[in-house]
Formats: sequence, C-alpha cells, structure tokens
Amino acid sequence: MTELVSRAQGVRFDELALATRNHGMQLEGMRYDITPIGMHYLLIHFDIPEIDASSWRLRVTGNVERELELSLDDIRSRPATTIPVTLECAGNGRTGMDPRNISQPWGLEAIGTAVWTGTALGGILDGCGIRDEAVEVVFTGADRGFQYNVEHDYQRSLPIGECRRPEVLLAYEMNGTPLPPQHGFPLRLLVPGWYGMTSVKWLRNIEVVDQPFTGFQQTAAYRYQRDAEDPGLPVSRIRVRALMIPPGIPDFQSRRRTVEAGAVVLRGRAWSGTSPVVGVEVGVDGVWRDAQLDRSVAEFAWCSWSYTWDVGPGEYRLSCRATDADGNVQPAEQFWNRQGMGNNLIQEFPVTVR
Amino acid sequence: MTELVSRAQGVRFDELALATRNHGMQLEGMRYDITPIGMHYLLIHFDIPEIDASSWRLRVTGNVERELELSLDDIRSRPATTIPVTLECAGNGRTGMDPRNISQPWGLEAIGTAVWTGTALGGILDGCGIRDEAVEVVFTGADRGFQYNVEHDYQRSLPIGECRRPEVLLAYEMNGTPLPPQHGFPLRLLVPGWYGMTSVKWLRNIEVVDQPFTGFQQTAAYRYQRDAEDPGLPVSRIRVRALMIPPGIPDFQSRRRTVEAGAVVLRGRAWSGTSPVVGVEVGVDGVWRDAQLDRSVAEFAWCSWSYTWDVGPGEYRLSCRATDADGNVQPAEQFWNRQGMGNNLIQEFPVTVR
Repeated sequence: MTELVSRAQGVRFDELALATRNHGMQLEGMRYDITPIGMHYLLIHFDIPEIDASSWRLRVTGNVERELELSLDDIRSRPATTIPVTLECAGNGRTGMDPRNISQPWGLEAIGTAVWTGTALGGILDGCGIRDEAVEVVFTGADRGFQYNVEHDYQRSLPIGECRRPEVLLAYEMNGTPLPPQHGFPLRLLVPGWYGMTSVKWLRNIEVVDQPFTGFQQTAAYRYQRDAEDPGLPVSRIRVRALMIPPGIPDFQSRRRTVEAGAVVLRGRAWSGTSPVVGVEVGVDGVWRDAQLDRSVAEFAWCSWSYTWDVGPGEYRLSCRATDADGNVQPAEQFWNRQGMGNNLIQEFPVTVR
Repeated sequence: MTELVSRAQGVRFDELALATRNHGMQLEGMRYDITPIGMHYLLIHFDIPEIDASSWRLRVTGNVERELELSLDDIRSRPATTIPVTLECAGNGRTGMDPRNISQPWGLEAIGTAVWTGTALGGILDGCGIRDEAVEVVFTGADRGFQYNVEHDYQRSLPIGECRRPEVLLAYEMNGTPLPPQHGFPLRLLVPGWYGMTSVKWLRNIEVVDQPFTGFQQTAAYRYQRDAEDPGLPVSRIRVRALMIPPGIPDFQSRRRTVEAGAVVLRGRAWSGTSPVVGVEVGVDGVWRDAQLDRSVAEFAWCSWSYTWDVGPGEYRLSCRATDADGNVQPAEQFWNRQGMGNNLIQEFPVTVR
C-alpha cells in the first residue's frame, strides 16, 4: 500500500502540497503553555467539510438500548469538562526516516496543546445503554475522499474501555471559542494520550459495534508495519518525546541558527502518552546533561524544561531527549517502520555560537 | 542572490521545512467571506518574536517635529477603523514557475481575508508633524535573522502618500480578537491592496526618512527581476487573480478530484489590488464562459463568484481567470521573473466526473 522513497531523492510536489495544507506548529510556539489557535498542528485527510451547525445532528447507533440523535445545544447542555491536552500526529518525524513513506511529510512540528471543552463520551454512551456484546465504538467524520484508491468517510474506532475514560471528550470548544472549521467544527472526539488520528473531527455518527472495526484508517493506515506483507500493530498512544525551541536567530531558507555566546537558556517541552515524563537531557556534541523539568501543564499536556548552557564561540550540535516513568527513552537510531509512524528519534541540529 | 532550480529536480528539504512553518489557506476556505483565524496564510521570515505587551512601545522617529513613544493602550485609545482586507503573499504561485527561485515554495494558497481593526497610520504621522523633506516611512519589526547571509531586522518602507491613505492601519485586532502571535502581536502595519510583505508584523519602530530606504527586503528581495544583474522593479500592488474551490472529493495524497455528474456549482473568489474585479470566467477544457460575480466583501476584499456546470461523466480540465477594471487579465503563460514574484498564472486542474 505504501510507497517508499529515499531522502536522496528529495521531496515530491505532492508532498509539498500536503505540507502547505496541513501545517505544523512553529517550534518557537513551545514557549506558550497553551498553543494559540492557528499555531496548533493540523492534519486534514480530505477537505474541511462545510457544516451548518443549526441542522447538524450527532447520531449514536448500533449495539445500544436507545439510539440517540443530539443537536449541538443538546451536547452543550450536558456536564462540561475543560482540560489542556497535548496532541501529536502519529506521522510526526516521518521525513526523518530513510527511506520514508510518501504521505504527510512532517518534520518535527506536528504538535500542539489546546484547552478543550466538551462533555464526557462515557456519559453519552451510558445514557444509551451499551449492550454486553459491544466491543468498540466507531466514530465517523463528515470528511470523505480517497486514499490508496479506497473511497471512504474518515472513520476510526476505540475500545469500549478507552471510551469510558473520564477525560475522553466530545469537544466543541478550543481555547475557549467554538472549534474552528479546520479543527472539527462543530464537534470532535478528543482522546488524550493517543496520537491525533484517534480524535476524529467533524463527528456525525457514533456506532457501538460488536466486532472489531476493519475500516481503512484502522486496519490499513496507522499501523507499525515492517514491510508490505506485515499487517502491523495498531498505532495508539503517543511515544515519549522532547523538543527544543531552536535558540538564537535563524537563516530564512536553511533555518540554521546563530546564537550569542554566554549563558544561553535552552527551553523546550516534553510529553508522553503512556506515563509522566520524568527526565529531559540536553546533549551538546553528544555529551548529555540533565535539564530542569517543570510540572506538566496538566495530566495530558506537555511539561516545560530548561537548561542554561554556558558557551563560547564555535560550532556545536544540540539535542534533547526525554524519558518517561515507564522507562521509555527516545532512541538515537530511527525506529523504522514502513508507514513512518511514531518516529520519536532524538531532535538534533547544528548551531553557530559567535 | 537567488538560486534557481527546475521543476524536474523536485522539491528540496529546506523548502519543505519552510512550507510546514509558513502555511497556506486550504482552498476550500474560500467558502468563507472572512477567513477563520488559523486558516489565513502566514509568512514569517525569521521566528515569531516573544513580546511582552505591557512593556512594548512603538517609537515614531526621524524627520518629524515631535518623536513619539506609544503604548498599546495609547494606540487602542485612538480612533479605530475596522475593515475586511484580502492579503496575498507576493510569492504566491512561485512553484508554478519553471525554473523557480528557492524560497518559500507556495502553490496557490498564500491568501486570506481577515477583518482588521486598528488606527489610521496617517493620523499618527500627522500628529508627529512630518517635515517637508520626508519621502518615505520605514517600518521595523521585532523579527531578526539572516537572508542570503545578510543579517537584518525585517524592515520595509512605504511612500508618504501611501501612508496617508485612510485605510492604511496600525492594526491590533484580527477577526475581533487581539492579533495572534503569528500574525504580528501586538501591532502590525496593514496596507490594503499591496502584497503582504508590506504589512510589517511585530512593529517596534516607525521612522520617517528623507531618502529612499535601501534595506535588504526593499532593494534585494521583493523585486520583479529578469536576471541576476537586473536590479528589478519593486513589487507593490496585488495582481488580479481568481481561484476556484476544488469541487467534489479529493484523493489524500495527490489531491486529485472526483465529482458527481449533474449540475455542479463551481465557486471561488477573485481580487485585485489595483482596481475592482469586473469579470471571472470559468474554463472547461479551454472553453471559457462567464461566471456570476458577486459584490466584493469590502473595497479591499475579495468577491465571490459561481458558475453552474452541467456535466456528464468523463475527464475534464477546469480553470478560472479574472479581469479587473484596468483591463488586467490573468495570463495563460507564466509571468516569469527571477524571484518568483506575482505569478498570477491561471489556475488549472484535472477532475474526474463520474
């Protein structure tokens, strides 16, 4: 299904067209606890759908005692939860793989942390009466198109147990305002801790099913796959990662950094979808030192870190890596897989200090 | 100064990195009169600066009777103007040129229309007492970096006459909210009708000068240049353009469109920085028909157009082109220039009707 190219072949025009539609967060955006709207990364598989909120309804169907049809007002009148959540695209880091899959060509910037407001999915499901034979819930968005010649609505499923986590929301606000069209207006799923493909946007249907869902985005896409024959393991939780705000000033074209000598405060963020981040290290030419780690912004949001680097003029290579409470640490060698998923390779870049 | 590559060479990784920082507007965003924040195109030459609004000041200096230092509250307490304005990057369409300049690799999506609120620049300048010898005003942003090995703050100038146009604003709000960081917080220049490089973001200084400004972004960049020796003509007003919302549904990777046969309503927008748009035509396989043109959203904002296409199954090529009141019409052959500026070549793309 996937097509591999080497880095030596350069970038294709279809990759470029995807990059300019589906943008990343400028890494200096990590200075904000909460990412301003418009800086948060976006991945839109097809087109942004045009939805009239007044006639829009969410249908809850399938293996339930009582099917439901809810208006946006119905959903907004339910108990609300507001939480900061860090999201990351499962393909973040894809262009760091060699060879890479031809798909959304992310560097490292497919990240963002927003304050989401919504109502707990579990509460709605409980109100419907889930039948005992139910195993998963399938979420359908209003976006439709082709991927590898398969025409489909964007759909993903989630096990019942995950759906009942209190922080799994049907979200209608982002940073205190109604969802912007590009982030899923009027309603999206939000699954903290999981890569972004799970948090289905432009929700129109929720179906409780008694068999595992086998749609394209579940069984063909978003798999950790060794080769074309390998069905692969499903992509789920966000792998541990730290990123650094590139210090100093950039060159427009190359983004190469120039830094003033002295005490340079290096800053960044770290997060993991499986357990808290317990350490961040900064590497200077391969020598690692502990950074100071702050409390995370919220349970499912990134934490900030800093490190004061006393440095004289010269050429250096900077890097950073995080470790989580489960002992996961970012790899120095690429975690290669055919679709370019979950590549949390250590960030490393050159700087000139003057 | 500029480096040219052919389309056959593909895209470079440094171009890709720029595309994911500096994003375009998804073309389906043309369905909105006013572009939602986060969908509007962005071009950030260096990094988004970190600015503390409470200590920030705007200085007005140079050939004036009274220099000024203004806080954000000072500026917000002045008479306010709110206007919708369409902005476009001067480099929009660059990757449609062959060979192209290595710079921000825009397709066609470097556009957006926002409602801007600010105070007239002319009022502030008049309050300072511009001296007779003044010819231009130089605007300096807080963003700094290198371009072609030249280190500089981002700076552009504007003739005094343009500065006095009542719709040229020092803007502090976008779509009714404080400017987002990436759009110039806390204050930016806004010059309706001109390409976006003129509307300097993160303003920190305004200097009235008695000689034409010769900074990098004025005399080296943003020139219609034939070859490396040609000093070129300055880029200024937006050239006439129409764009179409790609109809039907897309393929994820290629963005290739599939449309249902029948009466297909094609829609889009058209604008020109020099005079009103007076006509839009839709081309089907090279046969042109007049589209219906609506009034523009505002004097300096785009207008919408539509065309009902009765079509049966088959393969087609769709295009559109606009004409303005000065008789300017979009060209069918590229308006080639070395920096890839102002390329308003007709948009054309294939669709499959089923």
